[in-house]
Amino acid sequence: MAYFDAASAAPLHPVARQALMASLDEGWADPARLYREGRRARMLLDAAREAAAEAVGCRADELVFTPSGTSAVHSGVAGALAGRRRAGHHLIVSAVEHSSVLHAAEVHRAGGGPVTEVAVERTGAVSPSAYAGALRPDTALACLQSANHEVGTVQPVAEVAGACRAAGVPLLVDAAQSLGWGPVEGDWSLLAASAHKWGGPAGVGLLVVRKGVRFAPQGPRDERESGRAPGFENLPAIVAAAASLRAVRAEAAGEEARLRELTERIRARVPGLVPDVEVVGDPERRLPGIVTFSCLYVDGETVLHELDRAGFSVSSGSSCTSSTLTPSHVLRAMGVLSEGNIRVSLPPGTPEEDVERFLTVLPEVVAGVREKLGAPVSAGDTAAGRSEDTVVVDALGRRCPIPVIELAKVIGDVPLGGTVRVLADDEAARLDIPAWCDMRNQQYLGEEPAPGGTAYSIRRLT
Amino acid sequence: MAYFDAASAAPLHPVARQALMASLDEGWADPARLYREGRRARMLLDAAREAAAEAVGCRADELVFTPSGTSAVHSGVAGALAGRRRAGHHLIVSAVEHSSVLHAAEVHRAGGGPVTEVAVERTGAVSPSAYAGALRPDTALACLQSANHEVGTVQPVAEVAGACRAAGVPLLVDAAQSLGWGPVEGDWSLLAASAHKWGGPAGVGLLVVRKGVRFAPQGPRDERESGRAPGFENLPAIVAAAASLRAVRAEAAGEEARLRELTERIRARVPGLVPDVEVVGDPERRLPGIVTFSCLYVDGETVLHELDRAGFSVSSGSSCTSSTLTPSHVLRAMGVLSEGNIRVSLPPGTPEEDVERFLTVLPEVVAGVREKLGAPVSAGDTAAGRSEDTVVVDALGRRCPIPVIELAKVIGDVPLGGTVRVLADDEAARLDIPAWCDMRNQQYLGEEPAPGGTAYSIRRLT
Repeated sequence: MAYFDAASAAPLHPVARQALMASLDEGWADPARLYREGRRARMLLDAAREAAAEAVGCRADELVFTPSGTSAVHSGVAGALAGRRRAGHHLIVSAVEHSSVLHAAEVHRAGGGPVTEVAVERTGAVSPSAYAGALRPDTALACLQSANHEVGTVQPVAEVAGACRAAGVPLLVDAAQSLGWGPVEGDWSLLAASAHKWGGPAGVGLLVVRKGVRFAPQGPRDERESGRAPGFENLPAIVAAAASLRAVRAEAAGEEARLRELTERIRARVPGLVPDVEVVGDPERRLPGIVTFSCLYVDGETVLHELDRAGFSVSSGSSCTSSTLTPSHVLRAMGVLSEGNIRVSLPPGTPEEDVERFLTVLPEVVAGVREKLGAPVSAGDTAAGRSEDTVVVDALGRRCPIPVIELAKVIGDVPLGGTVRVLADDEAARLDIPAWCDMRNQQYLGEEPAPGGTAYSIRRLT
Repeated sequence: MAYFDAASAAPLHPVARQALMASLDEGWADPARLYREGRRARMLLDAAREAAAEAVGCRADELVFTPSGTSAVHSGVAGALAGRRRAGHHLIVSAVEHSSVLHAAEVHRAGGGPVTEVAVERTGAVSPSAYAGALRPDTALACLQSANHEVGTVQPVAEVAGACRAAGVPLLVDAAQSLGWGPVEGDWSLLAASAHKWGGPAGVGLLVVRKGVRFAPQGPRDERESGRAPGFENLPAIVAAAASLRAVRAEAAGEEARLRELTERIRARVPGLVPDVEVVGDPERRLPGIVTFSCLYVDGETVLHELDRAGFSVSSGSSCTSSTLTPSHVLRAMGVLSEGNIRVSLPPGTPEEDVERFLTVLPEVVAGVREKLGAPVSAGDTAAGRSEDTVVVDALGRRCPIPVIELAKVIGDVPLGGTVRVLADDEAARLDIPAWCDMRNQQYLGEEPAPGGTAYSIRRLT
């Protein structure tokens, strides 16, 4: 079995396990109490805070532990917006933030607050100048992830933080995917992270609020964690989180080079091993362990299932749930193919052999799924055919990747310059039909509403 | 060392420890994922939910796991109020709820929502008829703890739930202190609890919302835990919480009788061993492990410190933090003495010898503190003295218990029928001077504002 989904949750680091077990005996009491067990708990909590703050590069009194990365983001966004109420209500996020940030923005919007979503380039990165252009006199808060959770692209945080600083706007960085690899550079104001992403236990997030940043915690008052994270401290997990952050940092340099080489292999070789694949994300400015690609004519869920049977645990599409059928907002924002999307995220320590075995198994798995779905076998297979100028494909009620498969099947039926109209109601078609045109050098003409769905028009060029 | 503060946090139950360690290896992956590790995590989560639901006495799909008891209360109150928006905005709480409930009520009040705090009797219990009398046509939600965390008094939940049901108002029960002992009886609608109170790990709360109860989760959307508890599930802790709840329930019957006998010993013997003590809370309808008493002429913090040196970890006054200097809202609502307050809460398994040793040590400790503070040695020590009709004691700027000690020192200086005026600015005096009068059979005449504080008037009767 090979677990290739570290970006969802990393297996527990051995140091986290040890620290957790040790502090189960020492750290169950209330650190607010004055008796022996309470003082011991307080000392553990203080030491964990010091260690985590050192790894983040902040003061200990700027950092609180939250019950999760999600709650760190929710509290951070709400507290920073409320703290800056007098400056204005405008919120900036990138279009490819984690759902926790986007959902916090949704709440703000629902309450009447204006939100700007900064678009990203095809690599998944924001352009610093585009981000800076979104800053307004009434901007209360700006949010940017340190690196993307679905495609691994590293964001230009330092540049964006500089622009925000110049405008007097605090920048909140969601560092969930990168904190295990190193501190976030640049002059950011708030930072959120999640321990189970770096090999710490579940149940611990970090929220850092730099001194001088206006911050007004929302929700019911609670005295724990400087009033920023209500509820009894989950001390054994906090101790384990801090200890494992230190440990993964100590191993980061060596492991970073090794994983980067392994993901580079996948990036380089998959397009040769599997026809009709698009590797997505920035090839250079990226996290060491993540590589993402999309395969035409297959659906993510079936590929995942087949890969699982073959012993590989990977993720697809949206990183958030397996129940969401709409295509990932990240891939949509990048304008890349979402069909048959596979994210490989290697945990530290992944053996080379596992990656090699994956590269052997993947082509068979994709070919098998394509065969089952009746996908066109080869790209050049557009020979004979009718000579009607327009062919209409009715894919209403059919799920991704069927609309694209049907399109690929009939494109050879129209003459060069002829058009295919695909009727579809699956949301993924909106993203995948243009992406297919791009990959196939056909011309995408656009979409229009049609009874029961949308009509997508494609002109045959080759 | 004897740890007598189980009501703050119980030491980890051995079953919790075992389950936690076992599921660290099996339960770190994302239960929303479809691959092997995710499916295994999902199975563990489902099994834990079944077990917890069985112990609570609800359906599995009515129960979600939250990051803490506090967050279960906060989410439960907010979600239930929002779900009942059309019925009205009125919220009812008892005056002795845990701070998490009262802080949630504060938020509601700050947003313009009317809140009724139902007073309690001197035992700490609400009267069912008084509670029912607070119900209004626009009542959206009622909250009542199953048992009080500071004095152990059991509340008449079933009767109150019946009255709420008849009025069509959902009742939220904070069962944090009692769930380890048994299910909450009666026809309640929502329930919150906290695993570390029953010997489970920190980082897990329960929120139960009965089918048919209108509930609208507040805050940013998240698909985990039915949308009622955002953030990645803390699975190992959840598994440990459910397993330990089952385990403590299996041991509850035997342990309940044993602890009840031990706390009864303390209740019965402390007043004979230590002069000027008031044992508070209901002597019958109470939790097995909690007994609370207040000692005249000492301050809680010093007694706690001395008991800690003698090897006993107990709590005092407000259950929430050691930094709060105002007297506990629970003792205030009960109208009992708060001075020198000590809560003993025995964890299951407490040896009899520890309790006996406590009864030996306590009198010495209290006597030592009294001596240091210059407290009057004996109650009858009011012999000689001036014969002025009124004596004024200036205790401005002096902390509890000094104002009461000074009062006790001069009461003998006035003739029978004469008055003492105590000037004080410590909040505790407002509660403790009337309580002292009650214990000493003197007449409390009332308070009035005075320069720099408050003047309390007492007439000497004996």
